[in-house]
Amino acid sequence: RENFIHVCNPHLEKMKEDILYHFALGTGTHDFPALFGDVKFVCVGGSASRMKSFTAYIAEELGLGSPGDNYPNICAGTDRYAMYKVGPVLSVSHGMGIPSISIMLHELIKLLHHAKCSNITIIRIGTSGGIGLEPGSVVITRQSVDATFKPQFEQVILGKTVIRHTDLDDQLTKELMQCSKEINQFNTVIGNTMCTLDFYEGQGRLDGAICLYSEEEKLQYLKEAYDSGVRNIEMESSVFAAMCNLSGVKGAVVCVTLLNRLEGDQINSSHDVLVEYQQRPQKLVGYFIKKRLGKV
Amino acid sequence: RENFIHVCNPHLEKMKEDILYHFALGTGTHDFPALFGDVKFVCVGGSASRMKSFTAYIAEELGLGSPGDNYPNICAGTDRYAMYKVGPVLSVSHGMGIPSISIMLHELIKLLHHAKCSNITIIRIGTSGGIGLEPGSVVITRQSVDATFKPQFEQVILGKTVIRHTDLDDQLTKELMQCSKEINQFNTVIGNTMCTLDFYEGQGRLDGAICLYSEEEKLQYLKEAYDSGVRNIEMESSVFAAMCNLSGVKGAVVCVTLLNRLEGDQINSSHDVLVEYQQRPQKLVGYFIKKRLGKV
Repeated sequence: RENFIHVCNPHLEKMKEDILYHFALGTGTHDFPALFGDVKFVCVGGSASRMKSFTAYIAEELGLGSPGDNYPNICAGTDRYAMYKVGPVLSVSHGMGIPSISIMLHELIKLLHHAKCSNITIIRIGTSGGIGLEPGSVVITRQSVDATFKPQFEQVILGKTVIRHTDLDDQLTKELMQCSKEINQFNTVIGNTMCTLDFYEGQGRLDGAICLYSEEEKLQYLKEAYDSGVRNIEMESSVFAAMCNLSGVKGAVVCVTLLNRLEGDQINSSHDVLVEYQQRPQKLVGYFIKKRLGKV
Repeated sequence: RENFIHVCNPHLEKMKEDILYHFALGTGTHDFPALFGDVKFVCVGGSASRMKSFTAYIAEELGLGSPGDNYPNICAGTDRYAMYKVGPVLSVSHGMGIPSISIMLHELIKLLHHAKCSNITIIRIGTSGGIGLEPGSVVITRQSVDATFKPQFEQVILGKTVIRHTDLDDQLTKELMQCSKEINQFNTVIGNTMCTLDFYEGQGRLDGAICLYSEEEKLQYLKEAYDSGVRNIEMESSVFAAMCNLSGVKGAVVCVTLLNRLEGDQINSSHDVLVEYQQRPQKLVGYFIKKRLGKV
């Protein structure tokens, strides 16, 4: 059965043309069904260069490309986001933070709707700070929680606060965990992910330009987070989960932890170690896509 | 009298080395006073390519460069932000949204502190949606207000809500307004700027993937904003103002309006018109810097 994207906006059908400004794409200038109609998997991540290298990786894994192949940036008309496609896999960068990923998701969901895509799975592959985990561990998010550990995303719409829930797809989460067991290359856990609006004060770091609390207060906060089920901290998962839920898209968040926040704040592993860590969510999601396509 | 950056963090002086992770710069690997000690003006904006073209523009204006000169990206080790320098002017991109600019500002303020910079002026040059203004008008921000029109920035630190004020430097604002009168090329006003966490629902747009309100409700909200003194809407000014205030840096926000939100939501002017609009804050701030340096 085909499961189409649900666009929760009655005004859209009245529009003659839809300009996706931050993608530099529009229904008046681009044939969305021809360009994107076969998309089944969307992978999103903060960094444009990481999404480009993921595209080259998945192309090779799926037997759709060779080393050295070049993948043009579909959003070349802007530098806000970058977008790449190979076969049924679309990769899009989203920058850092809830507002940045939220703009991208509004335009992505409309893109998939205009393209008449069905049965879409969307996965965020990212980096995060871990709590109580060995660096390099991968966390698959059960629930995204806010900075007070509540599984909700609070948003102000026309001046009024609206609350949306942030559960992620349970079956997809388990399927990804099973994939990690099968490839058996790094530690993976299912846990809650805290999503904050700031990297320094908002995550209890001691090394920002502003810090008005003590190391003891910081550690107490992180331990409370751990006790409530939080295993990593990043900056995009809550609005991602909320928007997947409202649009009827199955979504997952798979992030590697670059450090253990109970032991420090600065990301000071060597460049090579960090690069290898960042490939782990890509490997896991690459294997998942291959398996879904019957290529394992 | 030299006015140094104020770093509100007693933990920083205990650190042997400081890695500015999102700039790919560190005090252990880079000589900050040599690289940045002469900086007096910092200009920040969302798009990396816009900050690069601003650098080429200001270099020519100050007689420090020729057309075709290339300016290397100081943050070439990462694709999170881009940074360029010419003479006393540092230009840095900040992506979209409060969290993205907040990470950049934490690391920028530490950079200027480590470099022992003094008497810094920092100006955000950006794009925005206007309210009740002819598209292409430039707004110099008096106060940044939140989505309920309050001049404050609310932030959660260690699970508790902290409120910081968002006034911008009054004298700097007036100085910029005077510069605009002198160049006399486009309409410029001083007004309040609403800073939101979302571009679609958060700004009352009807063209996002999700919209659960009517056109009448949208227009009522925008008119209330106008009546409270808001003249434009963007997504970074509140944390910018709050962090400038805490760090003792004189800051200003100068944004062009790409459309009049009372008349629509989509940004559908031609590419050339939008490019010319985006040059207006650059022209105004370029003239301001020339005047400050006695080169007008």
